[in-house]
Amino acid sequence: MGITGKLQGGTISKMSKSTAMAHSNLAFVKYWGKKNTEINIPLNNSISMNLSAARTTTTVEFDDNLAADKVTLDGHTPTDKFSGKVSKHLDRLRQISSIDTYARVQTENNFPAATGFASSASGFAALTLATSSALGLDLDEKTLSILARQGSGSACRSIPGGFVEWYAGTSNEDSYAAQMASADHWDIADVAVVVASQEKDVSSSQGHLLAENSPFWPSRAELLPGRLDRVRRAIMERDFRTFGREIEAEAMSMHTIMMTSAHEVAGSWRSGVYYWAADTLELLIAVQRWRADGIPVYFTLDAGPTVHLMCPGEHRAQVMAAVEATQGQREWSILVSRPATGASIVTGPEE
Amino acid sequence: MGITGKLQGGTISKMSKSTAMAHSNLAFVKYWGKKNTEINIPLNNSISMNLSAARTTTTVEFDDNLAADKVTLDGHTPTDKFSGKVSKHLDRLRQISSIDTYARVQTENNFPAATGFASSASGFAALTLATSSALGLDLDEKTLSILARQGSGSACRSIPGGFVEWYAGTSNEDSYAAQMASADHWDIADVAVVVASQEKDVSSSQGHLLAENSPFWPSRAELLPGRLDRVRRAIMERDFRTFGREIEAEAMSMHTIMMTSAHEVAGSWRSGVYYWAADTLELLIAVQRWRADGIPVYFTLDAGPTVHLMCPGEHRAQVMAAVEATQGQREWSILVSRPATGASIVTGPEE
Repeated sequence: MGITGKLQGGTISKMSKSTAMAHSNLAFVKYWGKKNTEINIPLNNSISMNLSAARTTTTVEFDDNLAADKVTLDGHTPTDKFSGKVSKHLDRLRQISSIDTYARVQTENNFPAATGFASSASGFAALTLATSSALGLDLDEKTLSILARQGSGSACRSIPGGFVEWYAGTSNEDSYAAQMASADHWDIADVAVVVASQEKDVSSSQGHLLAENSPFWPSRAELLPGRLDRVRRAIMERDFRTFGREIEAEAMSMHTIMMTSAHEVAGSWRSGVYYWAADTLELLIAVQRWRADGIPVYFTLDAGPTVHLMCPGEHRAQVMAAVEATQGQREWSILVSRPATGASIVTGPEE
Repeated sequence: MGITGKLQGGTISKMSKSTAMAHSNLAFVKYWGKKNTEINIPLNNSISMNLSAARTTTTVEFDDNLAADKVTLDGHTPTDKFSGKVSKHLDRLRQISSIDTYARVQTENNFPAATGFASSASGFAALTLATSSALGLDLDEKTLSILARQGSGSACRSIPGGFVEWYAGTSNEDSYAAQMASADHWDIADVAVVVASQEKDVSSSQGHLLAENSPFWPSRAELLPGRLDRVRRAIMERDFRTFGREIEAEAMSMHTIMMTSAHEVAGSWRSGVYYWAADTLELLIAVQRWRADGIPVYFTLDAGPTVHLMCPGEHRAQVMAAVEATQGQREWSILVSRPATGASIVTGPEE
C-alpha cells in the first residue's frame, strides 16, 4: 500500500480535491482507557458535544504526480510524526478505493495548539471526510465515524453533529459515534479557561494505557453505565442541574483514576498522572464557591489543565465575569463555545 | 457530672497539679471515615509516626475553689468551643475518679496553629495524661489511648511512642493505639511544607462523615488491609522504597475519596471536599520530578494543604534544598521532624 507512488489496485476516475471541516468535541462522560490500542476500542461508551469555538478545516487533493504525501498544518510543515499519522490515515481510505495515489493535505485549526482542545478529534474527522469526498466515496456517517476513530479515538465523536454518544463496541465494526440530539437541541455554553499551555508530561495515549493501574478502576467501570444513563437523560430532557452534577462528578472520577494510576517512567516511580496546573485547582475550587453564590455552573476537564465551565447559554457572560474576577493578572485565555454541527463538506470534488 | 462545682462522687485525696507533653503524629495509613462519631471508632486501622517538631505541653490543676474549668491556650482564653471540648474530656476522667472538682488547664503548642499539624492529637494526648496524673490515677497505655481517642480520634496515636498502629476495633474498649516500633527504630524524616494557613472550608469532622459518599469508598476499604500489611512490614524492615510508594499512593487514595465525596452545603452542591492549595499540587508534581532526579522522597498529606515529605534522615538537607529551590518568593514554612516519643509526664503531682 501506498509506498511506491504508482497506482496498483485501480485508477481514480474522478480524481479531485475536497475540503471538509469538523469541530473538536468535549466529553461529558469520558473516554479513558482502551480495550484495543491499535484501532482505539475504548473501555466504555462516552458522551460529548461538538464545540463551536474549535474547528479544523482540511483540504485533500490526490495527485498522480506526487511521489509522497505532502502535509501542511497551519501553513507549515508539521513533524514527521504528524505527517506519518496523516499518511497512515490516508492509507485506510486508499485501501477502500484500491488506489495508492499520494495526496496534498492542508489542514488549518482556528484555535491555538496546546489549549486543551483536541485538535486530533476535529483533525481526523475533517481528514476522514475530505479524503472520502476527494476519492468520490459515498460513505455513511457510521462508516466515517469508524474510520475517524482509527485515526484518533475521540475523532469518531466529531463526525455526527450536536450531542453525540460513542458506542464502545467490541470490534472495528461496532465502535462508532451517533447523534443523540442536534446542536440546536439545547442552548448550553462551554466557557473554556486555558490556564497553561505546557507540554504534557504523560501523553493521553500513554495515559490511556495506565487507567487500569488505578485501584479505583473497577469501581469506575461499575458506576459508568448508571452515569451514561443519567447524562443521556439529562441532555434529552435539558435538565441542567442533573447534567451539571453528573459531568462534574465524572470529571473528578476520571482525574482520580489518573492521579492514582501509579507507574514507572525510566525506573522512577510516580504515584499517578497529574494533568492539573495550580490554576486548574484554583478554578475547580472557585466553581464550588460560584455555585454557592447562585451561578449555575459546573466544570469538566479533559486530560490537561484547561477547565471547561458549562452553563446555560444565557449565563455565559456571568460565568466569564466570574472567571475574569478570579484571573487577576494571569494570562488565561477564554474560548466560549455553543453546541456545534458535525463534520461537513466545505467544497466538494470538481466533477 | 461536673456542672455544680461541688464534690458529689467522692473526694480527691491527692489533689494536685501535673504537666504532661505529647507530640502530634502523622498518619502513613490514614484515618478517614468513622464507624461511630460519638466516641470516634474509625472505619479502618491506621499507622502513624509521632513528630518531634510538634509538641503540646499541658498542665492540669484541680482546685476545689474553682466554680468552673478555666482553660488557657498559648496564654490566651480560647474559644468556647475549645474550652467546652476540654471540659467534656475532663469529665471523662472525673467520672473515673468519681469527683467533680473543676480544674485549671494550661496548654501550649510549640508549633503555630493552622499549619496542618494536628494539635488536637498532641493536645488531647497531653490533656489525658496530665489529667490522669493530677487525679492520681495509674492508667496503662491502652486505657490512656482509649481515653485520648474519645477526645479526638487521632490523639490515641500520640500516647504510645515512635511508630504506632491504631486498631480500629468495634467498641470503646477495643479501639486504641499501640507501639509498633520505638522512635529510634528507624531514622526517617518528615520535611513538612506549610504552604497556606487558610481556614478549612470543610472541617475534618465534617469530612469524615462524607467519606462514604464517594463512589470509590468500597474500593478503598477493600485495598486497606493489604496496604496496612505492606506499610507495617516496610516499617519493621526499614524498607524505605516500599514504605514511600505505599504512603504516597495512600495519600492520593484518601484525597481521591475526599475529592469525590459529593455533598450539599446550604443547598449548594459540591462535587467533593478539596483540601489542596494550588501550591500543594505544585509540590506533589515536583516530588515526582525530584524522585526522577534521584532524591529518595515521597509525600503524604493530611486533611489540609500542608505537604509532608518523607525521606531517609540523611537526605533531609537535600529535600529541604529542593523545596527551597521550588519555593521562590513564596512564604512557605518548613518544619522538620524525626520520629518522636509518646506522651510523658513532665512534672508529676506533688505528694
